Amino acid sequence: MGSHEAKPQAFYGAVIHSLSTPGHDLEILPSALLMVNAEGVITSFHKDVKSEDVDRLVDTTSTSLYRLSPSQFLIPGFIDTHNHAPQWAQRGLGQGQHILDWLSAITFPNEGRFRDPAHAQRIYSSAIDGFLRQGITTASYYGSIHPEATNSLADLCLAKGQRAFVGKCNMTRNSPDYYRDASIEQSLQDTESCIAHIRKIDPEGQLLKHVLTPRFAISCDAECLAGLGQIAARNPDLPIQTHFNEAEQEITATKELFPQFDSEADLYAHYGLLTRRSILAHCCYMTPYEFDKLKELQCGVAHCPISNMTVGGGFMAAPIREFLNRGIKVGLGTDSGGGFSSSMLDAMRQAMIASHAKEVESKGKDKGLKIAEAFYLATLGGAEVCCLEKKVGNFEVGKEFDALVVDWERDGVMTMVDEDEDGLGTVFEKFVMTGDDRNIVRVFVKGRVVREVRM
Amino acid sequence: MGSHEAKPQAFYGAVIHSLSTPGHDLEILPSALLMVNAEGVITSFHKDVKSEDVDRLVDTTSTSLYRLSPSQFLIPGFIDTHNHAPQWAQRGLGQGQHILDWLSAITFPNEGRFRDPAHAQRIYSSAIDGFLRQGITTASYYGSIHPEATNSLADLCLAKGQRAFVGKCNMTRNSPDYYRDASIEQSLQDTESCIAHIRKIDPEGQLLKHVLTPRFAISCDAECLAGLGQIAARNPDLPIQTHFNEAEQEITATKELFPQFDSEADLYAHYGLLTRRSILAHCCYMTPYEFDKLKELQCGVAHCPISNMTVGGGFMAAPIREFLNRGIKVGLGTDSGGGFSSSMLDAMRQAMIASHAKEVESKGKDKGLKIAEAFYLATLGGAEVCCLEKKVGNFEVGKEFDALVVDWERDGVMTMVDEDEDGLGTVFEKFVMTGDDRNIVRVFVKGRVVREVRM
Repeated sequence: MGSHEAKPQAFYGAVIHSLSTPGHDLEILPSALLMVNAEGVITSFHKDVKSEDVDRLVDTTSTSLYRLSPSQFLIPGFIDTHNHAPQWAQRGLGQGQHILDWLSAITFPNEGRFRDPAHAQRIYSSAIDGFLRQGITTASYYGSIHPEATNSLADLCLAKGQRAFVGKCNMTRNSPDYYRDASIEQSLQDTESCIAHIRKIDPEGQLLKHVLTPRFAISCDAECLAGLGQIAARNPDLPIQTHFNEAEQEITATKELFPQFDSEADLYAHYGLLTRRSILAHCCYMTPYEFDKLKELQCGVAHCPISNMTVGGGFMAAPIREFLNRGIKVGLGTDSGGGFSSSMLDAMRQAMIASHAKEVESKGKDKGLKIAEAFYLATLGGAEVCCLEKKVGNFEVGKEFDALVVDWERDGVMTMVDEDEDGLGTVFEKFVMTGDDRNIVRVFVKGRVVREVRM
Repeated sequence: MGSHEAKPQAFYGAVIHSLSTPGHDLEILPSALLMVNAEGVITSFHKDVKSEDVDRLVDTTSTSLYRLSPSQFLIPGFIDTHNHAPQWAQRGLGQGQHILDWLSAITFPNEGRFRDPAHAQRIYSSAIDGFLRQGITTASYYGSIHPEATNSLADLCLAKGQRAFVGKCNMTRNSPDYYRDASIEQSLQDTESCIAHIRKIDPEGQLLKHVLTPRFAISCDAECLAGLGQIAARNPDLPIQTHFNEAEQEITATKELFPQFDSEADLYAHYGLLTRRSILAHCCYMTPYEFDKLKELQCGVAHCPISNMTVGGGFMAAPIREFLNRGIKVGLGTDSGGGFSSSMLDAMRQAMIASHAKEVESKGKDKGLKIAEAFYLATLGGAEVCCLEKKVGNFEVGKEFDALVVDWERDGVMTMVDEDEDGLGTVFEKFVMTGDDRNIVRVFVKGRVVREVRM
């Protein structure tokens, strides 16, 4: 994959992104000029530039100028806030099974194989390539329980240039012998060693962070959760992720294990795991108390509509409109492989479908998501959930250039009525609803090309 | 696209299809041999043949032998029971709009353009190519109101080799002047001329049939519906299609126009439009009376989960399990472009998702669809809805060979854990949940190659 650009770069053409202002409206710019320095930081953003003025604005002796074709536009890279890297090759299996059954029958046997470093290397390499192909420039990954495999996932993200949170899964109970941490001490020690590994390979945290990853309370003894809470307190730079109120079967099992807590919010908060750095996957079942708690503690929600509507106990649409109304941070997750798709476009479409179900359920009160909102969730919303909103998520000056070049003409995936009639807004709407990875022809992270389709 | 094979053909390798026996279980055959004569009819089906015996069973001097690679398997072609050909280039637009609003704002202006034969030719040619690429070997198409354009759609299906029902839309009221039949007489006369056209170009009806297509009662005067009912009675070979109980907004408007009928079932039955040849799109809202009526009259249901969950008034899951339980014929429709996708794989996935919603709504009574059931709906179920079950839908001897060669290795769309570990059933499940058109490398209709991917 392309090496780091030594030169500053300039991009001229159509640009679409979500605004940071309340409401997160789309900004649709047919003729914008974005300048990016050699470190991959956006240095200027001219929003309406005539083609003939570009050469005056860009010094092409020092800067690489990339003129988008009329069939192309630039959008921010997608941010996948919930992704199980070891499940890459099991996508699509176990549809309709309840969550705990699906874990036992399909997932634990599959994840257990990551004890073999060569297997981990092979699957993770394929997985990262697959996610970059889908335009996922930032992913928050659950690894397996194995520190070697998890370190290898981090190494591969760095080598391939993907921005990522990488977490060793903590699992000290309620899973088979072949897929459980040897002890609570070992579990925490392995976490510390994975933290140290990432600090070694990416000392400034340019692309990588370790993410504390108690799988969920069912698989963690209380002392394990407490230990992770202490690590979180000692390391205020580290994000935290877990599954939260995902499915009835899971909530019931959690209550049986932790009868002293009235809710999962109280449980995880007690162990110091609910902070503004927390990424809570699913949040399908929410009480008013828990909404308030998440808001107060500034936790982020990783909404995973694909898996919510297939595995995990049938069909459940998370209260996405209410998260937005309450100002709770929310982004999208593919939840690949519980989610059958690794595409953030699919996640956006399913988020809209799930929100329509919620609109019907609430008798019209909780309005379905618009395309602009689904896109915000997949980009800037995800950045907020990951506390990366000052770094990525849209094209504000000072942010790093994580971007996708979309080309609607590629491979006949999308169809226009008339090339010169469909405006940029229409083309964008068609991309979100009917495009796929074939339309994502170039992927940048921090200014570097990390995936490119042969033209 | 490839010319008609003059020779008989034989196919050896993995074959998967639905059985015609009750329950429609999948038959998964790793080493089958299918023989197809020069007319495209399946003449024999050996279900377990050793590789070394193939040469003995197939006389390769007279027969073209096609050995599938280890990464390939053969399935029946997909049958799209509900598809609006003129909406091809508007897919994805108008998400979340209510049905009648979406018709006025997006669809009528778009369909009105098919008055221009050159425009129709261009979009229809692209549409048929697009649907063949998705493995749709049979489609039941709504055309626009224009007879020239509709005849051109039929011509193109025949030329490209797609099996199709092609219908001129009857619309005599409640649409703008620019998109309404000139009169009831003209509407019926145009229908007769379209019927005559297809009988001229495909006299034996090898691939094509005209389908009587009153868009829905809202757009048809009573005399128009009555006239179409009379044409249906005089032409017992012609299928009939309309929209049925799709959305609350549509049902309310229909009741206002036809207060004399208690239900859409009574309405359409009164005009002679409910027969075993009827393909009723959507059927989202069904009373016990209407279930009984559809069963009694042997009507077929075109279940269109993608559009039901996006356009048309929010989110509505049709009672798919109840149709199956009651033995009402049911197949899948992409409903492209109300449905944002032209992929029957997407339709299968969304049918499963919609059925999960129905399972929750019925408190577990109406179980969600299994993958095998979704696949049956997309193939043999669709054939039953179109009264084509003696011709296509699976690989029984005597049926015509409409088939897809699926290759899981293509383009890295699907991922296996270990090539030699994932059994054929697992590979099939992954194809249904994670594959796309790139995995459909060859498409046959009646033994003829109608689409082929460069290897």
